[in-house]
Amino acid sequence: MRDIVEIGMGKTARRGYHLDEIAVVPTRRTRASKDVSISWQLDAHEFALPLVTAPSDAIVSPSSAALIDSLGGLAVLNGEGLWARYDDPMPLFEEAIGEGALPEDIAIQRLYAEPVQPDLLARAIKAQREAGTAVVAVRLSPQVTAELAETVLRAGADILVIQGTVVSAEHVSKHREPLNLKTFIADLDIPVIVGGCANYQTALHLMRTGAAGIIVGYGANGGATTPDVLGIDVPMATAIADAAEARRDYLDETGGRYVHIIAHGDLNTGGDVAKAIGCGADAVMLGTPLAAGAEMPGRGAYWDHTVSHPNLPRSELEQVMYADERVMLSEVLIGPTFDASGRRNLFGALRRVMAKCGYSTVKEFQRVELTLAYRPH
Amino acid sequence: MRDIVEIGMGKTARRGYHLDEIAVVPTRRTRASKDVSISWQLDAHEFALPLVTAPSDAIVSPSSAALIDSLGGLAVLNGEGLWARYDDPMPLFEEAIGEGALPEDIAIQRLYAEPVQPDLLARAIKAQREAGTAVVAVRLSPQVTAELAETVLRAGADILVIQGTVVSAEHVSKHREPLNLKTFIADLDIPVIVGGCANYQTALHLMRTGAAGIIVGYGANGGATTPDVLGIDVPMATAIADAAEARRDYLDETGGRYVHIIAHGDLNTGGDVAKAIGCGADAVMLGTPLAAGAEMPGRGAYWDHTVSHPNLPRSELEQVMYADERVMLSEVLIGPTFDASGRRNLFGALRRVMAKCGYSTVKEFQRVELTLAYRPH
Amino acid sequence: MRDIVEIGMGKTARRGYHLDEIAVVPTRRTRASKDVSISWQLDAHEFALPLVTAPSDAIVSPSSAALIDSLGGLAVLNGEGLWARYDDPMPLFEEAIGEGALPEDIAIQRLYAEPVQPDLLARAIKAQREAGTAVVAVRLSPQVTAELAETVLRAGADILVIQGTVVSAEHVSKHREPLNLKTFIADLDIPVIVGGCANYQTALHLMRTGAAGIIVGYGANGGATTPDVLGIDVPMATAIADAAEARRDYLDETGGRYVHIIAHGDLNTGGDVAKAIGCGADAVMLGTPLAAGAEMPGRGAYWDHTVSHPNLPRSELEQVMYADERVMLSEVLIGPTFDASGRRNLFGALRRVMAKCGYSTVKEFQRVELTLAYRPH
Amino acid sequence: MRDIVEIGMGKTARRGYHLDEIAVVPTRRTRASKDVSISWQLDAHEFALPLVTAPSDAIVSPSSAALIDSLGGLAVLNGEGLWARYDDPMPLFEEAIGEGALPEDIAIQRLYAEPVQPDLLARAIKAQREAGTAVVAVRLSPQVTAELAETVLRAGADILVIQGTVVSAEHVSKHREPLNLKTFIADLDIPVIVGGCANYQTALHLMRTGAAGIIVGYGANGGATTPDVLGIDVPMATAIADAAEARRDYLDETGGRYVHIIAHGDLNTGGDVAKAIGCGADAVMLGTPLAAGAEMPGRGAYWDHTVSHPNLPRSELEQVMYADERVMLSEVLIGPTFDASGRRNLFGALRRVMAKCGYSTVKEFQRVELTLAYRPH
Repeated sequence: MRDIVEIGMGKTARRGYHLDEIAVVPTRRTRASKDVSISWQLDAHEFALPLVTAPSDAIVSPSSAALIDSLGGLAVLNGEGLWARYDDPMPLFEEAIGEGALPEDIAIQRLYAEPVQPDLLARAIKAQREAGTAVVAVRLSPQVTAELAETVLRAGADILVIQGTVVSAEHVSKHREPLNLKTFIADLDIPVIVGGCANYQTALHLMRTGAAGIIVGYGANGGATTPDVLGIDVPMATAIADAAEARRDYLDETGGRYVHIIAHGDLNTGGDVAKAIGCGADAVMLGTPLAAGAEMPGRGAYWDHTVSHPNLPRSELEQVMYADERVMLSEVLIGPTFDASGRRNLFGALRRVMAKCGYSTVKEFQRVELTLAYRPH
Repeated sequence: MRDIVEIGMGKTARRGYHLDEIAVVPTRRTRASKDVSISWQLDAHEFALPLVTAPSDAIVSPSSAALIDSLGGLAVLNGEGLWARYDDPMPLFEEAIGEGALPEDIAIQRLYAEPVQPDLLARAIKAQREAGTAVVAVRLSPQVTAELAETVLRAGADILVIQGTVVSAEHVSKHREPLNLKTFIADLDIPVIVGGCANYQTALHLMRTGAAGIIVGYGANGGATTPDVLGIDVPMATAIADAAEARRDYLDETGGRYVHIIAHGDLNTGGDVAKAIGCGADAVMLGTPLAAGAEMPGRGAYWDHTVSHPNLPRSELEQVMYADERVMLSEVLIGPTFDASGRRNLFGALRRVMAKCGYSTVKEFQRVELTLAYRPH
Repeated sequence: MRDIVEIGMGKTARRGYHLDEIAVVPTRRTRASKDVSISWQLDAHEFALPLVTAPSDAIVSPSSAALIDSLGGLAVLNGEGLWARYDDPMPLFEEAIGEGALPEDIAIQRLYAEPVQPDLLARAIKAQREAGTAVVAVRLSPQVTAELAETVLRAGADILVIQGTVVSAEHVSKHREPLNLKTFIADLDIPVIVGGCANYQTALHLMRTGAAGIIVGYGANGGATTPDVLGIDVPMATAIADAAEARRDYLDETGGRYVHIIAHGDLNTGGDVAKAIGCGADAVMLGTPLAAGAEMPGRGAYWDHTVSHPNLPRSELEQVMYADERVMLSEVLIGPTFDASGRRNLFGALRRVMAKCGYSTVKEFQRVELTLAYRPH
Repeated sequence: MRDIVEIGMGKTARRGYHLDEIAVVPTRRTRASKDVSISWQLDAHEFALPLVTAPSDAIVSPSSAALIDSLGGLAVLNGEGLWARYDDPMPLFEEAIGEGALPEDIAIQRLYAEPVQPDLLARAIKAQREAGTAVVAVRLSPQVTAELAETVLRAGADILVIQGTVVSAEHVSKHREPLNLKTFIADLDIPVIVGGCANYQTALHLMRTGAAGIIVGYGANGGATTPDVLGIDVPMATAIADAAEARRDYLDETGGRYVHIIAHGDLNTGGDVAKAIGCGADAVMLGTPLAAGAEMPGRGAYWDHTVSHPNLPRSELEQVMYADERVMLSEVLIGPTFDASGRRNLFGALRRVMAKCGYSTVKEFQRVELTLAYRPH
């Protein structure tokens, strides 16, 4: 049943599936929408929505974090982003995105040439709290975690997200001692989310670091070009299901420690969110879709943190919504909406499909029946 | 032979097939077109064509119903549509579709904000009859059936269609007692069509409610965005064949009660109609293709009843035909036509392909041989 | 190994393959182009090229037939085409294709409203011979064969082509006695080609009628809409291979009668021609590609004989080449050419690929190795 | 597990895979980029990059060869190209590409009507050396190798590339004695690269000729139309893996002779390069991507040597980059770059993906895990 194909003599590959290839199948029972709960709990923190934001400067500023929090999601500030590099980045990237002298991609990249300053980072974290954010989360890359984690903790973050495009539990280097995730996490007082990863083995190893949640996928948001640049392209339906198997095995191995799976990549519509959970995710990390919110700092543009690499960027700035198309973030997340494109009221849609399939909780909905069907185009 | 694939570890999906992926295969015998019958009988009602309309305000008004009836099809009035909300909706949606101040989608949605009035509904049903409709059919959603069914019956409807996007025989709610389809249908004096559904189990359960016909599919007409909004996308060829299996099993279980299968979704051309019947359907429910008829109230536009949801619409208004492209509905349904696109003379085409494959009746044609072939594009 | 899939419960379909999905695989031997023969022999007639034309008024007139003959192919005049309906059709369809008052499709269709006249047909056949055509072939539909065959024979045709979209060896009608192909062909003095068909069974039955050649496929040339209109879409690679199996079985059954397979459909490039032969065809019936020839009567347009149906046409007129793009027919068939699109020097290309794969004759090349590979687009 | 499908009765085909269908899968270990080596060694020659250029006049001139060499790649001069036909071709093809009177394709083709002159070829080879090229390589087609090889050797080439679209170890001709590759190579003092080929058998036979490297694929660069013209379309992932199996078998058969596999076709991005090596290639032969380099003689255009055939060309001139988009070749090959399209810093990308998958050398990376996933579009 596992689909191993022979690519050529002596070389096999496993068949993987993207979210676009699958669909949810309603079963014979339906349920009233009101009886459905879509809430999510990570460690001691409870959220109205199973939503984590991508750590993108285009959507998470100290002030937009509070809005996302109030709508029920977990906002993740990029600890190496512009608020950690500038006193007030807003005018700078408004200029970069606007009618500047340089192409937008390059103008945005240039902004990241400025170094990260621990005190600016600390200030941004505190500003997030002061703006009213109940649960403050900050993302650091594995490379800088040892150096900046203390700043983040002392500034009062509630959750630490250690995230690179590809993170493994075993990094090998002849030049410097890599971060030992297991020891590091054991010493922390706050829950850690770590990723991304894309297969059973890495997922299991990351779970064994003691993380409260792991990120599955490399963030194939709009503008991401990792498949072209590196030849890495994660079939998300398969990656999520594999990680869910690792979760079950780890649960058994530890006699009950439940590690959350946060899906990250190819999530653009309410249908995508439902399918990711249907494959086994506990929550989704969204990037591009949130850029349609009028309150977002990116002014309708989205860029991933990989946009800023000095010699090999792996994503492009994407103009998601022009000024007159943007809507309140609340319409994007929980509606109501007049828009039938699937890109509005993402979590109202999740609730609806759960009702149509007869499930009461996000956890139960992980068991929904799926079909594989290629819609001709 | 059943194609169950492993999406990821511990998560499987069944491979489903869309109508676009299959084709009909002529066998060695051919037959004269004149010897082919495409008539259809539901309960005591006989129809020249195996055609049920989608319950869309864009195609069924009290007066267009009579035309559809005279051409041999069964017109279904939307019992919660504009004729149940307004005294004379035509000027209103002519304005909405025309050069109004609002975008068409929103203007059309706004019209549905007005409440349904039982007396207007009754009047529309009677007007349908007065216009000469021999068989009068009305659609209600499961939510309002208990409340409005008596109005519909007293106004003289011949067939009741209970139709939601997803209908199950077992609806669960903590807040109000759901409609018991079985009891309800047993008490009615007229035949009931119920749906939509998309798999063997639900089809069988709906048959057990006592319905005369069940609708398979969720109406993927032009403009429908259910796959994006909810992640539900029914592979129609598979869904129809599964329902046909339920029909056979139910026939055996009851010692002879035959429940009709009405396919609803992805039906745009004569070839699509033939393939749906070739998969096991007894009749087809058409939406978009009929909007090409010049006599239709939607003036060339089509919209599904799901267009009107107050906080999560799941279809968009589609401009099917501009004024100068529209043709008599008779050309769309039974020809003759000069148009070779497949969207005209839909049932003349059905007759022709049945002849080319050597079959005499729609029922026999359900056994036609199929091929699965992906036409590269 | 045969790929039978379950479309749904109780309904299976065989997986079929289009020519676009396969490719030819060179093996370890290569051969000099000069040592390759691409000639073809049908009955007593020898041809430099394995080429039969589609019986289309757009490419075969009494005079263009002579040109095609001189280049090595077999031109087939449509016995029910415009030359059998008008004294001089050229000015009429020049007007129809040119800046006429009606859309081209309709204008062309109207021309076919005029009845076929046996004496005009006879004259056209004789004109073909007088223009220098060595082997004169005429196509009749099965419906008119009994009526017009004598006219065709007395006018001196060398080959009769009995061709409808779908022809079976067993036509059933309550209204009139159908043509008995077997008796009819046995009584004729000239070889008959009959078709189209699309599976093993029909192919075998048509071979048993005594035909010298059978046509496989329904002529999916540019503009053909049979898949949309009727839901019939022949995967040509599969259909040709199946017919080749029928040829082998019939050869065994008769102790040595070899019936030629003429592939008809989806043939646009030199690569397509090579793949059709690689699947088992003896010759190809080409339509659209020849319309690029400046000498063709259609003036760069192509239309199939199915364009002219009075109430359900199944193909559209296709403008293949504008005036300034057309080239000599010799460039299309045998080169030389500067054009690398695959649509020029079709048979030079066949010779080349046969050389690259190490084969000497068309018959041997039917054994060439194939690969199945989906080129992403 | 090997995927043999039945195309039709009695005709099978093996399923092959293109590079676009597969992706690289990071495993649980990651590695520091600095610890990764991407160098390549062929015979006594060492290269910083596993890069061989296509023998195209659009990218390799005597002077651009030196640049490519200095950046770490192996430039291959086309021994039958314009530098072997003209004293100074640059002004000629600047005119051909520019605003000439003829279409570019034809203008470029005309340039190749001039005959190859051995003394001009010798001079071009020497110019290559004088310009500073450390390792000088020249390509000859099999047809002219016997005649021109001595010229090439005496002019001082270090590597001879014998390359036709399809080369076999057994060419059959009634007209002239074909080149015996085995004897010919045995007599040479310099290493030979030979190809292209596309399957295990031919690969193994070419290895047995004594070649140091073999080319796998027929050079499906931008503009190549071989699939349309000849019906030959090589699924590169499969072809490379098959050739790698031949390499292993030949290694065993000879007790240790290692023949390098150079992948040629469908290589446009860093991801493609990584996937080709992941399938088993030792190096890649690049054409189109290098045309983006501002120093290239083709001025942003690319054409394959097959563009110039006198009666059946199999590729078209492709305008890869307009003047203002071109960048230094160093940016294309080794970065740094601001461009995230995957077409810049091709080998920096290779290094990065090797690090993300935890491999240290190109040879080890041939074992990387692959996934097969169809990204819907």
